[in-house]
Amino acid sequence: MNTQLRPKAYFDERANSEMAEHLRPAHRDTAETLAYACRILGMTGQEAGLAGQITARSNSGSGYWTLRFGLGFDEATPNDFIEVDKDLRTVTGEGMANPATRFHLWVYQARPDVQSIIHTHSPWASALAAARQPLVVAQMDMTPFYDDCGFLAEWPGVPIADDEGVLISKALGGKRSIILAHHGYLTAGCSIEEATYLSVYLERAARMQIRAQTFGDLKPVPDHLAREAHDYLLKPSIIGATFDYWCRQVDRGG
Amino acid sequence: MNTQLRPKAYFDERANSEMAEHLRPAHRDTAETLAYACRILGMTGQEAGLAGQITARSNSGSGYWTLRFGLGFDEATPNDFIEVDKDLRTVTGEGMANPATRFHLWVYQARPDVQSIIHTHSPWASALAAARQPLVVAQMDMTPFYDDCGFLAEWPGVPIADDEGVLISKALGGKRSIILAHHGYLTAGCSIEEATYLSVYLERAARMQIRAQTFGDLKPVPDHLAREAHDYLLKPSIIGATFDYWCRQVDRGG
Amino acid sequence: MNTQLRPKAYFDERANSEMAEHLRPAHRDTAETLAYACRILGMTGQEAGLAGQITARSNSGSGYWTLRFGLGFDEATPNDFIEVDKDLRTVTGEGMANPATRFHLWVYQARPDVQSIIHTHSPWASALAAARQPLVVAQMDMTPFYDDCGFLAEWPGVPIADDEGVLISKALGGKRSIILAHHGYLTAGCSIEEATYLSVYLERAARMQIRAQTFGDLKPVPDHLAREAHDYLLKPSIIGATFDYWCRQVDRGG
Amino acid sequence: MNTQLRPKAYFDERANSEMAEHLRPAHRDTAETLAYACRILGMTGQEAGLAGQITARSNSGSGYWTLRFGLGFDEATPNDFIEVDKDLRTVTGEGMANPATRFHLWVYQARPDVQSIIHTHSPWASALAAARQPLVVAQMDMTPFYDDCGFLAEWPGVPIADDEGVLISKALGGKRSIILAHHGYLTAGCSIEEATYLSVYLERAARMQIRAQTFGDLKPVPDHLAREAHDYLLKPSIIGATFDYWCRQVDRGG
Repeated sequence: MNTQLRPKAYFDERANSEMAEHLRPAHRDTAETLAYACRILGMTGQEAGLAGQITARSNSGSGYWTLRFGLGFDEATPNDFIEVDKDLRTVTGEGMANPATRFHLWVYQARPDVQSIIHTHSPWASALAAARQPLVVAQMDMTPFYDDCGFLAEWPGVPIADDEGVLISKALGGKRSIILAHHGYLTAGCSIEEATYLSVYLERAARMQIRAQTFGDLKPVPDHLAREAHDYLLKPSIIGATFDYWCRQVDRGG
Repeated sequence: MNTQLRPKAYFDERANSEMAEHLRPAHRDTAETLAYACRILGMTGQEAGLAGQITARSNSGSGYWTLRFGLGFDEATPNDFIEVDKDLRTVTGEGMANPATRFHLWVYQARPDVQSIIHTHSPWASALAAARQPLVVAQMDMTPFYDDCGFLAEWPGVPIADDEGVLISKALGGKRSIILAHHGYLTAGCSIEEATYLSVYLERAARMQIRAQTFGDLKPVPDHLAREAHDYLLKPSIIGATFDYWCRQVDRGG
Repeated sequence: MNTQLRPKAYFDERANSEMAEHLRPAHRDTAETLAYACRILGMTGQEAGLAGQITARSNSGSGYWTLRFGLGFDEATPNDFIEVDKDLRTVTGEGMANPATRFHLWVYQARPDVQSIIHTHSPWASALAAARQPLVVAQMDMTPFYDDCGFLAEWPGVPIADDEGVLISKALGGKRSIILAHHGYLTAGCSIEEATYLSVYLERAARMQIRAQTFGDLKPVPDHLAREAHDYLLKPSIIGATFDYWCRQVDRGG
Repeated sequence: MNTQLRPKAYFDERANSEMAEHLRPAHRDTAETLAYACRILGMTGQEAGLAGQITARSNSGSGYWTLRFGLGFDEATPNDFIEVDKDLRTVTGEGMANPATRFHLWVYQARPDVQSIIHTHSPWASALAAARQPLVVAQMDMTPFYDDCGFLAEWPGVPIADDEGVLISKALGGKRSIILAHHGYLTAGCSIEEATYLSVYLERAARMQIRAQTFGDLKPVPDHLAREAHDYLLKPSIIGATFDYWCRQVDRGG
């Protein structure tokens, strides 16, 4: 063992190169990836009747791909996704989009970096939303939300109209996620995998915060450590390997 | 994307017509629907020994159909339902009704609009009842109970007699649901599907309220938004599509 | 519907006679009943490593039948029970009893009415025990413990010696159950079925109390209603039908 | 039954000799034991993406065996473990170690008695860590942590560098476990079985503490009873029989 301690940058660099060599992400097309994402959300208990939503920006225009309305996360297959245009009209496939996904259009317009959006009424994040509490980053697995999770304190109502798109996209700003008071949460990723990863960890973070709150208000992780861990845990190689692991769990039956 | 925002009424109308076209409810007879409702209640953890009850008003008189006493929600089949008359005597099928369903008779008499009643001692609603707390509507999925969930603060005891029928039906009034202190809850729907949908969401609402209470008393959703969401989430097309989804979950093994 | 309300005694009598006619308990021998009881305890999450215990007074002497030490509740079969004598020496079968069941001997000696004892470190009852809180009967399903659940505030340590038998049997007195601070709970029934029924409901009661406590201290159910419900829910016909239902759940895989 | 009470030492001795005779531990090699340990951690809900870690000191040098990075606890097989050297370079098998296991090297160096280390971000221990609370030993099953569970109040950040090894190994000192604020926990056992046993009970202990905290701050078990129970529950025969039981649960599908 070295008696002289090496700087953290050395280890971060080494982790990057080793992960590039050893973590080989699986390849899937958009529909397969969306179906796995749905199954992962179902497996992690984020189903709430038909309230859950997932979309992926479509290549062919200003609309997106989404699960046909009427299906739940836990039954999605690659054949169940439809493409809608910029006014939520179905352009590919049969069926309709959940009318309450309309605000996704506004987020995609405001955020060219976003390729996928997930919105659910998952049990723990919804409890946090019912209590109108922003997320407090108090543990390592919550750090993907450090300075990256907004809070919309006022609920605009059932989001089927244009107004909610304006409000929510403005409140999200440049962040990857947001807690919507009285409502639920939204994650916006540079890939379907990132949006899914954020969704799973956001639900866990809400659960942890509520349980820890039994002891009183939480003390956040110090800023510089939170930022460092945020960047570490959002490395594409880690997101990819984690998503692949969850897909194998789905394949084994969740 | 439109730069001028369209009014919400436009979107509500559009959602209605699109859902009428795309969400095609499955057809089931009363016994099948009751059996699925039981399985959904079992799947969502509402079993509590033999304490759970479900009934559907019978066409042929002033009685109802109910699960034969001695069976649990999670094992119900369409063949396990019996019809009782207005004094709880079995008139169709073998076996007896749960004697504690007697108060259903009073609700059906007082409320011609009610076609189905569910009463359970589900874990979270019972915890709320043990704490003698009315429901607070603080999140979108709780809005089906906005101005539509009563509270009976005094427990009349084991509800096997006539007195409890008088008390409970009076406390319910014209509402679709009620929290019974020291006891559990009741939902009363215009269909088996609606009563089931309310039961699943009431148990979730109680869970959410208890978890969110860790941060202190909840602030309710503003009235006009709560009412709007109440009406949206109780649209028959949404109830039907959600019930169908849960039936498919039951068919996959819950 | 009758306009004149009949007295509750009428309905209680009618429930008794109808249940005697319609609820036909299954027949099982002691080993089968013990094995089902173990599986029910496992199914309801009462396993805690090897800490759970179940015994049934033996006919042939002053000892009891118990699960061979080293096996968990969820794997018990009718062949896994051994008989021990009044000093915990194995007299029938192979293997040893859990040394920490020794206090059962003292309870059987002090309580000729008791035929079966269950002691577990189930999650919720143990949390109540860790908080050193007696049970508060605040909901109908908790009433089997009304004036029938003791509280031992001081923990005597790992119960492998004689002293603990003296302490615990004295604290139990003539009751059917007891919360053991810093430790867990014990139920003592006139049958294996009753002890099991009490165990399942005690764990639920503890869960309900802890969750409801989020709103502050609970207000107990009024005495006369608690006693009435206590007696109703401990009717042998209801205990038998509930146990049979849980056995069918076990047979379906829990 | 003896009227004169025998001393506890008599019973402890007897338990030892009877357990030596009747509890026969299964034999497994290191890779099999590690795989079962992983599955037990998965079965008890300690998975958190790829954050969980398990290592066993290697015989051939100053490194250890660990699960190949990218796999989750619930999918581990005996073929999935690799050996790394004292600078975390793979020397046996294919793939890489989780870079965040580096601090294990420092613990093995400081503690010759330690043969296996587990570190997870399990849900309940992480909630305790988020609340920055040390464990309070308030129930019998928590006593394996009596005077044997440290607390590191400051989080050093993602533990991929040398610095964290210095900090964590120092905070652990001579204890078998530690709560790492803002982070998770670590157990360090004289065998893989002991580290696993401590991990399962630490997660349960955290769950119990959080739930019991609803009633206010906990009162610890008296010192001499806690120490006695600590020593009893850490007997190798009890750890071995419990581990074997959990392995059978894993074999039945968890």
